[in-house]
Amino acid sequence: MGDNVLNTPPFYTTKDAETGSLSRRLFRSYDVMHVALRLVCLSASLASVVVMITAKEKSTMSLYGFDIPVYSKWSFSDSFDYLVGVSAAAGVHSLLQLLMTSRMLLRKSSIISSKKHAWLLFASDQVFAYAMMSCGSAASGVTNLNRTGIKHSSLPNFCKPLHSFCDRVAVSIAFAFFGCFLLAMSSVLDVVWLSAY
Amino acid sequence: MGDNVLNTPPFYTTKDAETGSLSRRLFRSYDVMHVALRLVCLSASLASVVVMITAKEKSTMSLYGFDIPVYSKWSFSDSFDYLVGVSAAAGVHSLLQLLMTSRMLLRKSSIISSKKHAWLLFASDQVFAYAMMSCGSAASGVTNLNRTGIKHSSLPNFCKPLHSFCDRVAVSIAFAFFGCFLLAMSSVLDVVWLSAY
Repeated sequence: MGDNVLNTPPFYTTKDAETGSLSRRLFRSYDVMHVALRLVCLSASLASVVVMITAKEKSTMSLYGFDIPVYSKWSFSDSFDYLVGVSAAAGVHSLLQLLMTSRMLLRKSSIISSKKHAWLLFASDQVFAYAMMSCGSAASGVTNLNRTGIKHSSLPNFCKPLHSFCDRVAVSIAFAFFGCFLLAMSSVLDVVWLSAY
Repeated sequence: MGDNVLNTPPFYTTKDAETGSLSRRLFRSYDVMHVALRLVCLSASLASVVVMITAKEKSTMSLYGFDIPVYSKWSFSDSFDYLVGVSAAAGVHSLLQLLMTSRMLLRKSSIISSKKHAWLLFASDQVFAYAMMSCGSAASGVTNLNRTGIKHSSLPNFCKPLHSFCDRVAVSIAFAFFGCFLLAMSSVLDVVWLSAY
């Protein structure tokens, strides 16, 4: 086959061409998956921040026979502050990655340029995934305590008078966990790239 | 050089032999690092469980002029139960991996047998690392609330009368976070393997 093949312009056989277009298509779907994950992650972190910072409620509760006014706002709890901070940071990370990725895609090059780049992406995705898991868990530990009351001494359930506040917090936490899951998936995609090249 | 080299028994040059022994040494140090991480992680999870389940204290505190007896035990809080459960599970995971790894090392084979095995290890390390981060954060959210008091209504600081209880919980949480870090490092080692082969 030597001469014939070497004289055809692209210097590869039909089979090679098929494999090439297949791997290009795989590349494309990999890139699209990456971009989709970033987009959904950006939305989830934004939703988590917005739902949390709009959570506040006024009510009264009775404690040992007294009617005590209670007012709850997200910024009263350190854990909720932490959730807002981390979710905002994860949102910024997703937005930056999305911008860089779109630039690469417009240039029609692969979104991961080198092994070093893939390691960097893996590290940052991991850090943000752990941070999101941490803030979601801290906030749900606190809100669970609010819901069940405190067993050290017999105190009442804060979520009865502050019903809508607790619901909002729960929704915000759910978005944070979803964001964590998406970041974990992104880091798995980075490992797929690392293991393939 | 052809004939001479092909006639020497091992069929490779001195340079190849050096590279071979270098990669064997790299393999060895990789395996040793893996085993060391597992050992320390096992100890950290055990320490976290033991310190937590021995945390209980009796005391009194004054609330609105009344002296109220307070008794605190780790099992009163869902988040502390969760920490004990997850740390115990991570300890069992580390122990099982350690046993499997030692068997491989005694047979003088590499501790990761195939790409599938490496992916499995990566997945399990990731799951336990996220779980440890989650339980540590949930517990620290709750213990932070105990320490700073609750801002919804003006309640006192639980950690003043229950000083030693709160300290024990903090130590247990620190061990859980350390365990999470070690599991994260283990999963990075798995990715190093995946990216190299």
